[in-house]
Amino acid sequence: MSYLDLNYTPSSGDLVCEFYYEVEGIPHLEAAERIAAESSIGTWTALTTMKDEIKRKLAPKVFYHDLESKTAKIAYPQVLFEEANMPQILSSIAGNIFGLKEVTHLRLLDVIFPEGIVRSFKGPKFGIEGIRDLTGIKNRPFIGTIIKPKLGLNAKEHAKVAYEAWVGGVDIVKDDENLANMKFNPFSKRIKETLRMRDKAEEETGEKKIYMPNITAETLEMLERARLVKENGGEYIMVDILTSGWASLQTIRNAGLDRVIHAHRAGHAALTRHKRHGISMKVIAKIARLIGVDQLHIGSFGVGKMKGSPDEDLQYKAVLEEEIGLRKVLSVASGGLHPGIVDDLIKISGINVVIQAGGGIHGHDEGTRAGATAMRQAVSAVVEGISLKEYAENHRELKIALEKWAPEKLR
Amino acid sequence: MSYLDLNYTPSSGDLVCEFYYEVEGIPHLEAAERIAAESSIGTWTALTTMKDEIKRKLAPKVFYHDLESKTAKIAYPQVLFEEANMPQILSSIAGNIFGLKEVTHLRLLDVIFPEGIVRSFKGPKFGIEGIRDLTGIKNRPFIGTIIKPKLGLNAKEHAKVAYEAWVGGVDIVKDDENLANMKFNPFSKRIKETLRMRDKAEEETGEKKIYMPNITAETLEMLERARLVKENGGEYIMVDILTSGWASLQTIRNAGLDRVIHAHRAGHAALTRHKRHGISMKVIAKIARLIGVDQLHIGSFGVGKMKGSPDEDLQYKAVLEEEIGLRKVLSVASGGLHPGIVDDLIKISGINVVIQAGGGIHGHDEGTRAGATAMRQAVSAVVEGISLKEYAENHRELKIALEKWAPEKLR
Repeated sequence: MSYLDLNYTPSSGDLVCEFYYEVEGIPHLEAAERIAAESSIGTWTALTTMKDEIKRKLAPKVFYHDLESKTAKIAYPQVLFEEANMPQILSSIAGNIFGLKEVTHLRLLDVIFPEGIVRSFKGPKFGIEGIRDLTGIKNRPFIGTIIKPKLGLNAKEHAKVAYEAWVGGVDIVKDDENLANMKFNPFSKRIKETLRMRDKAEEETGEKKIYMPNITAETLEMLERARLVKENGGEYIMVDILTSGWASLQTIRNAGLDRVIHAHRAGHAALTRHKRHGISMKVIAKIARLIGVDQLHIGSFGVGKMKGSPDEDLQYKAVLEEEIGLRKVLSVASGGLHPGIVDDLIKISGINVVIQAGGGIHGHDEGTRAGATAMRQAVSAVVEGISLKEYAENHRELKIALEKWAPEKLR
Repeated sequence: MSYLDLNYTPSSGDLVCEFYYEVEGIPHLEAAERIAAESSIGTWTALTTMKDEIKRKLAPKVFYHDLESKTAKIAYPQVLFEEANMPQILSSIAGNIFGLKEVTHLRLLDVIFPEGIVRSFKGPKFGIEGIRDLTGIKNRPFIGTIIKPKLGLNAKEHAKVAYEAWVGGVDIVKDDENLANMKFNPFSKRIKETLRMRDKAEEETGEKKIYMPNITAETLEMLERARLVKENGGEYIMVDILTSGWASLQTIRNAGLDRVIHAHRAGHAALTRHKRHGISMKVIAKIARLIGVDQLHIGSFGVGKMKGSPDEDLQYKAVLEEEIGLRKVLSVASGGLHPGIVDDLIKISGINVVIQAGGGIHGHDEGTRAGATAMRQAVSAVVEGISLKEYAENHRELKIALEKWAPEKLR
């Protein structure tokens, strides 16, 4: 049977996938049909159990194909998918097809989810607006830090570094992605100590301060940790969405915890990095938004230690903010950031972003508090329209940071 | 600080990773240290918050490096990891490191988990022995089928096809990976109808028959579906472990449901397929075993429609059966299998395997029942040491199957 229909125009009820793929031994167009079959109702041989009725109602259509860009687009009737079941959707459109013998490379470039699927998920509970309301921070980027070293501090030391960062000027303090319930730093003790120091920092600065404890673990354990955060007055939870997985993320989102969900994406680059295979970050961002994270790491807009480019990261940001009837997700820039790149970063990202720096704050020559101050000064400079160089003239923490990480900005 | 120590011998308490990687702009060996840092306690710049004590106790060691094979081995002290928390472990050793700018390709080839980590997970509840006890099938491979077409049958039709397969000679009937709770085939109705037909097939054949319903969904929904299976007398549940994610798989395993867990791996090839990047199937098999699946898809030993080779798949099988103090996981061969490859397959795999054929059964010219019979005949032939050709002489279902899919075996 054929899945090809180049005259077909997808309906609003279709789920549409765009694939990049390379083939071996069969024509490129034929492979598109193989992909369509394996991701829906077909298999490698004709079936005695197949019926015309099924083909008519359920067969997807390859409606676009381009040999030069090696791409094809496939429209799937929504009925092939279970609403509110992301694992099922992915087992179809991002499942066995990656292993087909004749398809040597395959990349899921984009997915357009039909409204019926979008509406079946909760989406973000807070999103950009909810986070701005919660924090009262309206007209500038958020400043975040990750407690460093990634591992090794005990609960009290962790809370102390967090405190230093907050009073220095940081809004948001985040656990690192590999810090969970550790022998040297138990989860329960850490959040109690750190939220206590948050209260102290709020009192001293008169500003709203945020702590994002990493609850990443087995699902029920995550729920338990999220409840503990709530009980102790934390407004945020952090989940490593790819190493935990979509099923558990959805459980956390659906649990009615009323906490802001910060999504870390450790491991995404195993899937997203190479352009000829895997799943694009754009697709991952769309899925995370549907399920309902409030903040998502999308890269450092080409200015940090991680692979990425301004154009790519802006594409992800656009996906997090496009109008699809769900709240907008706040973009998090992270990875090798420091005060010296803040001007370049904001020029690209705009103010709806968390600028999250670990080493770029705790690596400051005068320590965490001064590093936080330097970062806040850099953000203030940009928001006030003053160059980092000029601002550094009478802001010594910023000057020290620039001397260390971006001496060219002082010239 | 340096993470290099080529004289170091890993202790039994270390978690050891083997990485393949390629670099750009920095020496290969230096990149190994970058990987070690980012996956443990370090970052891109020196930290004022770092202490000698932390370095001494927590720093991993790059203890092996080979420029030719582009590999390095890193030993991590166990204290860097939370016991029984696979997402945390992966956020460390398979997390941010995939995105490091200077490391252009990275593949996690192997992980040796220390005993303390292994013991913290439950491992398989049943494993090969438990499944042999449950089914009473002792001295031959298991024969499985997937209901086809993948999607489109209603609950009654689904149950009917399952029945045909069972009475034809199949032991195990499995839902396809994209069949969940569908509008045209609701989960609850499907499992009731299908388990009812299983009872009928058991009565008629006098053999134990197995149904593996796909419970893949959001975590709590999966638990609910698993309970429904249990209530209706099903002994097995099927989970798509990669699209659901490790956190939810662990929740299912830990829930005390006392069901055999069949693990489908849709989407694995997005991570595993290309040898220069991602995560090896070997690592995925090890993780699945630790968490506690009883059966795992590992490929078709190079004889089916999916990418794979006998050597590779045997490596995965070895991982599922090696002595590590946990029950052994039963290997599932699947993807483009039919009666004509059964002799080749068993020669490679041995009898501890589920031979799972979808199209290779339902595509039989005389339908599902005859297809199941042909497959059972092929297995009987091999177990009895008779060639498929000779056995086909007085087993017409097998003969028809061979004529269609493997005419060369009749010559």
